[in-house]
Amino acid sequence: MPHITLPQGVPGIRSLVMYRPDTGRLLYELAQSLLRAGSPDSTLTDAERELLAAYVSSRNQTAFCTNSHAAAARYLYGDQQTLVDQVLTDPATAPVSAKLRALLTIAGRVAADARTVDEAVVSAARREGATDGDIHDTVLIAASFCLFNRYVDGLATLTPVDPAAYRTMGERMGTVGYVLPEAPGASQANSITQFS
Amino acid sequence: MPHITLPQGVPGIRSLVMYRPDTGRLLYELAQSLLRAGSPDSTLTDAERELLAAYVSSRNQTAFCTNSHAAAARYLYGDQQTLVDQVLTDPATAPVSAKLRALLTIAGRVAADARTVDEAVVSAARREGATDGDIHDTVLIAASFCLFNRYVDGLATLTPVDPAAYRTMGERMGTVGYVLPEAPGASQANSITQFS
Repeated sequence: MPHITLPQGVPGIRSLVMYRPDTGRLLYELAQSLLRAGSPDSTLTDAERELLAAYVSSRNQTAFCTNSHAAAARYLYGDQQTLVDQVLTDPATAPVSAKLRALLTIAGRVAADARTVDEAVVSAARREGATDGDIHDTVLIAASFCLFNRYVDGLATLTPVDPAAYRTMGERMGTVGYVLPEAPGASQANSITQFS
Repeated sequence: MPHITLPQGVPGIRSLVMYRPDTGRLLYELAQSLLRAGSPDSTLTDAERELLAAYVSSRNQTAFCTNSHAAAARYLYGDQQTLVDQVLTDPATAPVSAKLRALLTIAGRVAADARTVDEAVVSAARREGATDGDIHDTVLIAASFCLFNRYVDGLATLTPVDPAAYRTMGERMGTVGYVLPEAPGASQANSITQFS
């Protein structure tokens, strides 16, 4: 049960956006900027950005964000969607590009203790083709999911258990993105993309 | 030295805002919403919000955010500014209200592992007068500083060592707040409030 009074039956971050719309709007815009846009020289695809989000959420053991962003990544990877579960199970052996593997290492370090992101892991990513924008966006995606994960966990928001619910969320996240209606309110709860 | 090419001589989050202004603008607006406004029923003062930010940054061992938000809290506490260092040294014995002490406990748990925020610590805060808005804002401030701390540490941004630099920042944070010029750019670097 959530620690504060939130709209009943509304899961995760959507209930929190309805609780405090001014900060909610900024968090949705941040998710859209990070997961559907990027630094000018970044080479990361939307699918890779969602995978980084799911991976960090998995490291933080936030089931809801892991499931929803893994679903979005599977939707965006299409034919290659099995990659997502391989990365979440063991990023060291998953058949992703060497560049993405190096960025996953950086993301994992940001989640655990960002002070451990050192020249060695950054150089390793650069050797595989990572740009400044890739490194920047990886760090900011990982840092932002440390926020989202803690926000939904710290207030004990509702977490669906039905895998079908996440598939629906993932498809919406992969098509509509993270867009709020102009004036979020209870009557519009179902038109808000769920993401964390 | 920063891990990516950032404007030289510009510290902390200000250099990152100049690197990627679209996300930077959202992060400044988030800081302003969290530290200079609040949920409708919240009773937290600006000084208490800055103290929560400094405390979480201290727990995350991010020197720069700790020093800058501690400076802002000292400025806002005025005559009671010694409270800030007492809280950072030992929140259990610092002479703060029982309500703020209970909220500091929640903030510390969010920083370490937000899943450990349980009914016991939430009820303890309520018994001392904390409202839903106080609990919500404490969790979101703590979660947001887990982002800010990781963003500046993960990219190894410049951290000033001169205490006077932080006093200047703290006064600006306490008066102007977290406001960006319309179009941030190199020539306006000094007009951007530094905060993390």
